[in-house]
Amino acid sequence: MHDLPIKSDFERLRKLFNPSSIALVGVPRSLKSGSILLTALLDQDFPGPLYPINPKADEIEGLKAYPSLGAVEGPIDAAILMVPSSKTVQIMEECAAKGVKLVVLYTAGYREKGTEEGRALEQRVLEIARSGGIRLLGPNCMGIYAPESHLSNYPKLSKTPGKLAFIAQSGSLTNMICSLLPLREMFFSMAVSTGNEIDLNSSDFLEYLAQDKNTELIVLYLEGISKGTRFHEVVKETAMKKPVLIWKVGMTNAGKRAVLSHTGSMMGSRRVWESMFKQTGAIGLTGIEDLIDVSTAFYFLPDTVGPNIGIVSAPGSLAVAAAEACERHGLRVAELGRDSIQSLSSLLPETGTSTSNPVDLGFSATMDINYFRESVEVVGRDASVDALFIIGGGLTPDLNREFQRSIADTHKRLNKPIIAISLPGLNVEISRGFFKKGVPVFESVDRAAAAYEKVLRYQTWKRAVKG
Amino acid sequence: MHDLPIKSDFERLRKLFNPSSIALVGVPRSLKSGSILLTALLDQDFPGPLYPINPKADEIEGLKAYPSLGAVEGPIDAAILMVPSSKTVQIMEECAAKGVKLVVLYTAGYREKGTEEGRALEQRVLEIARSGGIRLLGPNCMGIYAPESHLSNYPKLSKTPGKLAFIAQSGSLTNMICSLLPLREMFFSMAVSTGNEIDLNSSDFLEYLAQDKNTELIVLYLEGISKGTRFHEVVKETAMKKPVLIWKVGMTNAGKRAVLSHTGSMMGSRRVWESMFKQTGAIGLTGIEDLIDVSTAFYFLPDTVGPNIGIVSAPGSLAVAAAEACERHGLRVAELGRDSIQSLSSLLPETGTSTSNPVDLGFSATMDINYFRESVEVVGRDASVDALFIIGGGLTPDLNREFQRSIADTHKRLNKPIIAISLPGLNVEISRGFFKKGVPVFESVDRAAAAYEKVLRYQTWKRAVKG
Repeated sequence: MHDLPIKSDFERLRKLFNPSSIALVGVPRSLKSGSILLTALLDQDFPGPLYPINPKADEIEGLKAYPSLGAVEGPIDAAILMVPSSKTVQIMEECAAKGVKLVVLYTAGYREKGTEEGRALEQRVLEIARSGGIRLLGPNCMGIYAPESHLSNYPKLSKTPGKLAFIAQSGSLTNMICSLLPLREMFFSMAVSTGNEIDLNSSDFLEYLAQDKNTELIVLYLEGISKGTRFHEVVKETAMKKPVLIWKVGMTNAGKRAVLSHTGSMMGSRRVWESMFKQTGAIGLTGIEDLIDVSTAFYFLPDTVGPNIGIVSAPGSLAVAAAEACERHGLRVAELGRDSIQSLSSLLPETGTSTSNPVDLGFSATMDINYFRESVEVVGRDASVDALFIIGGGLTPDLNREFQRSIADTHKRLNKPIIAISLPGLNVEISRGFFKKGVPVFESVDRAAAAYEKVLRYQTWKRAVKG
Repeated sequence: MHDLPIKSDFERLRKLFNPSSIALVGVPRSLKSGSILLTALLDQDFPGPLYPINPKADEIEGLKAYPSLGAVEGPIDAAILMVPSSKTVQIMEECAAKGVKLVVLYTAGYREKGTEEGRALEQRVLEIARSGGIRLLGPNCMGIYAPESHLSNYPKLSKTPGKLAFIAQSGSLTNMICSLLPLREMFFSMAVSTGNEIDLNSSDFLEYLAQDKNTELIVLYLEGISKGTRFHEVVKETAMKKPVLIWKVGMTNAGKRAVLSHTGSMMGSRRVWESMFKQTGAIGLTGIEDLIDVSTAFYFLPDTVGPNIGIVSAPGSLAVAAAEACERHGLRVAELGRDSIQSLSSLLPETGTSTSNPVDLGFSATMDINYFRESVEVVGRDASVDALFIIGGGLTPDLNREFQRSIADTHKRLNKPIIAISLPGLNVEISRGFFKKGVPVFESVDRAAAAYEKVLRYQTWKRAVKG
């Protein structure tokens, strides 16, 4: 069938991705694209020796600089190459001579240029790697971010390790995602920018992360795949263990042309990809907001969610919109029990409110958070409700914080998922606090419902195939 | 045909919406939902006398309180009623006796309760209004925000008048939209929360705003409409003059049930509404994010936009995504002239970039803003390009600000629309500055393309019907 790596492969890769020493070849002396890779490793407190290689400098960022790889006395596990593509053949040969095990080829200028010369150069680099026992990441990539191994490819990334893995054929997307998600208390086991993938590719990383016990959720950004059958098999195998989310671009004509000059990948048709999603259980993503939303839902929601949603809202309009969004995305607006409705009727003002689901607390709730707290408790305890969507907040920053604290408290006691919905720009005080307490926040009811449904769909699929 | 208001009707309404004195009946003494309406008027420096009516207080918020409407010596143009629904009949009679011209009925507890009693009460209130020469807004509404008239229905709203009008059958949605859009430098001519619409309704306001010279764009949130034919005619007439955007809810079963207990409106089927959009030229909206996006596009884009988009991006992945988004939403990825491509080739690093559209500046551009400035200039001057999508920013807050300034400068010189795309949480320094300089910012390429296309579609429709 397919060739999943045997245990020793996993261990070999694990070692490869945990280098003890790193050389950075061609680090510029000033702020240019290359220097950030050194800054990134310094930021992440990389514990082993770092060797900047630059014949024109004695010292870079307080570190002794070396004129060449050969001039370094100790062993070098990994090398990050920032030299122009014209110099890579020579440096690759030096890497092989020095016994380097992993090369991250940062520079571009290969296949994606669309020239015969670019393709030939790529091939030559690969041959040197193969004969020298070097595994190669890139070219045209940013490398690896892995807080547990103190690796980083971008300045100021979080040092907290987590359960999310991100594989992307784009360096700057990796930077954006790795900068943004920790603001939501979502942390990474590994993020890797794979570029042109002439050796190590997305399938290799997926296979590796499928076995990595720290990784519970894998997200991919793909422009194209060279070995489709293997990828299909690896996705299928992995999705049985943990969710695999894929944003595939290059499915329209304009997108295809753009991909060719970005990483030069082969793309495949939309139909091929759609049936792949169906057959493997992978979840398709439609863009960067969808990527963030769906990752958030998988990161925070428990292993078993149900389709029946209880909606508690202070704005009546968004209560209506939430009910519509649930229905549109295949969720159900839970039918509350008679007891719950009676409790809500005795709790809430008689007018300007609604005590059936979606529960509209009326405007008073933004000024008296008790309406929120008590109603969420009632709806949350109703047996017909699998999860709650909470919309709104307090009228003032203080009331907003009280709102956030009391909902988070209730969440802890209820043991049911609570999803908060807060428009960007409103209730800015509460988002971070909610995420810290395990309550994910979405920017609209529509996006919350869409993301929740994808978690539900994956779990249902997984139970069905596992029988 | 239909009865568009004649000039004198417009003048009568204009006077009605510019009261010289306002009584607030039933203002609570502490922070409850009612008191914010008084705070709102004080915040907005309402110049005429404000009369809080509350038999239990001598003074509220530093203003002399009166025991009843009759106890006020001067005339009262408008009254805002915050009394329980059980007291409205009595107070309405006092309003009629006092010669009040406009009543804003804030309290709920009428038709939307779903009881015969609620409906009867609503009817009785309407009869008193009719016989007393009173125009009625509500019940179950928040009233009017109109900075030029110093009216407001929510604390801390902007005092700057603008060209956007918002009509909504939901008070809290009005509050949210009126709080959020001024952060984007989008200001209001009028925003009105119409509630149950037993007298003044959405059609009346639409008709009024169609003639209001300050209003250039009208956005509606609708749960339902009582007189469909008239509404259809008014929308049709208005859309010929200025864009009309409509977010219609209550089109799914769950949504319909929710609407009934929110404002008790009749909803109509999705099909009816879809053909209404087609026949009238109104633009349908799908949710609150779409409402904000499409309003932003209409607010900032000029009267004539074209379909050919030039894309300039630092993240290669988002260049690809932007090309796809344009194609998906019926826009064209402009084909740059040979001269432009040559200029870009000489400007940009040879590798890691793409000089055909979508133009990928490579990672260096985040550190050297000149790449952005010069490329945007080249692409912007290309005759094949109608508008530019600019994606990315600077690596540091300083570089980000330099980026924002230089793009805004170029925008001024180019005289072509520039649309910036910036993910929420990234490049936070630049959004406000861009909006101030007339460059709208969107949160994703997909949302930018979707909103742009709606402006293009409206303008194309308008040219076609005007012949």
